[in-house]
Amino acid sequence: MEVVKRVRLDPAQRRAQLISLGVKMLAQRPLEQISVEDIADQAGVSRGLLFHYFSSKHDFHVAIVRENSREMLDKTAPEEPRDGQMSSDSLFDTLRGVLASYVDYVSENRFTYVSLLRGTASGDPDMRAVFEETRTVMADRALVYLPLIGVPRTPQLELAVRGWIAFVEEATITWLRDPKTTRDELIDMTVRALPSLAIASSPENASALLGLVT
Amino acid sequence: MEVVKRVRLDPAQRRAQLISLGVKMLAQRPLEQISVEDIADQAGVSRGLLFHYFSSKHDFHVAIVRENSREMLDKTAPEEPRDGQMSSDSLFDTLRGVLASYVDYVSENRFTYVSLLRGTASGDPDMRAVFEETRTVMADRALVYLPLIGVPRTPQLELAVRGWIAFVEEATITWLRDPKTTRDELIDMTVRALPSLAIASSPENASALLGLVT
Repeated sequence: MEVVKRVRLDPAQRRAQLISLGVKMLAQRPLEQISVEDIADQAGVSRGLLFHYFSSKHDFHVAIVRENSREMLDKTAPEEPRDGQMSSDSLFDTLRGVLASYVDYVSENRFTYVSLLRGTASGDPDMRAVFEETRTVMADRALVYLPLIGVPRTPQLELAVRGWIAFVEEATITWLRDPKTTRDELIDMTVRALPSLAIASSPENASALLGLVT
Repeated sequence: MEVVKRVRLDPAQRRAQLISLGVKMLAQRPLEQISVEDIADQAGVSRGLLFHYFSSKHDFHVAIVRENSREMLDKTAPEEPRDGQMSSDSLFDTLRGVLASYVDYVSENRFTYVSLLRGTASGDPDMRAVFEETRTVMADRALVYLPLIGVPRTPQLELAVRGWIAFVEEATITWLRDPKTTRDELIDMTVRALPSLAIASSPENASALLGLVT
């Protein structure tokens, strides 16, 4: 086990260091097996000091999962739209970039990803709140872009985009467990699914969106 | 509390009675609050006898959830396709009937439904196995019908249909929590989403499916 030299860190740095060590460990083992002792050893601090920063093991685990989700969101962030307009082709390219980053990120962290979203953690209210926040960020991103190509934001579109996030998660997890298509086929399908579902939410948009799908 | 008269039942009947009492109670309170004592009292049997049929409280809870899922699948079963062929319109009508039954069933059991799929139970491996089996039955139903209107069954279509189940669940749960659309708008959207996602899975099918969506 790698043990870092005891160094003086200010409280914010120390807290960030402990979370960062937890995120690294999460790539190698399920959350349930991340012990406070191991992390404290790696950081060169006492178990007691760790509990100075986190009120409980559960609180520490939630902080790890929150940071892990934040990293996933960072790696999959789309470019900002320029001057409030966007062509359908640019939207499609942007969406493809986002989904490719997403699929690659979860492929590299497949064990962590599946165990968080489909394991014990998925039943915990605090963990679920983190996942829900993450899904909301992902849905809001899509809801920023669709109106730029003329798809009006309606309650049905919001519902469809929310459902699209669940669609992408489920398709990706199914694919990680038993990949019967290539990475590119998965990405293409999840990309085309967004305009498809935007059509489903409001058939009036069909003509504007069909070019993206077919 | 309703206490039934102690009657002699054969083992299969007794087991079914205990599960049925559990399913009724599940409509009123979350699974975690269904106690073995209450059910035994209602059935007029001893706690010990209940454990003759179920090896643990957890085992009993899983049996309740399995029966609850079976009832949902029964209530949402589509009519059998006749003579191995089907028009697109008939498919659409069938699908609409299935989704209307589904949305109405979960609306009537909203508390149970949301707490099972988004509460503590969702993190339990045995419960998850029941939900996964249920999703597989729902996905297989869709995969029986789509080829009847000429959509070939491919790995991408299987992935898309699997994702569609997650889409319908998520859209329905979001709607139950905060209904911003009417029941019919929700149903129409989830119905149109299936051909939309079939298009996304394989754009070659677009012309065959577009009539259903728009």
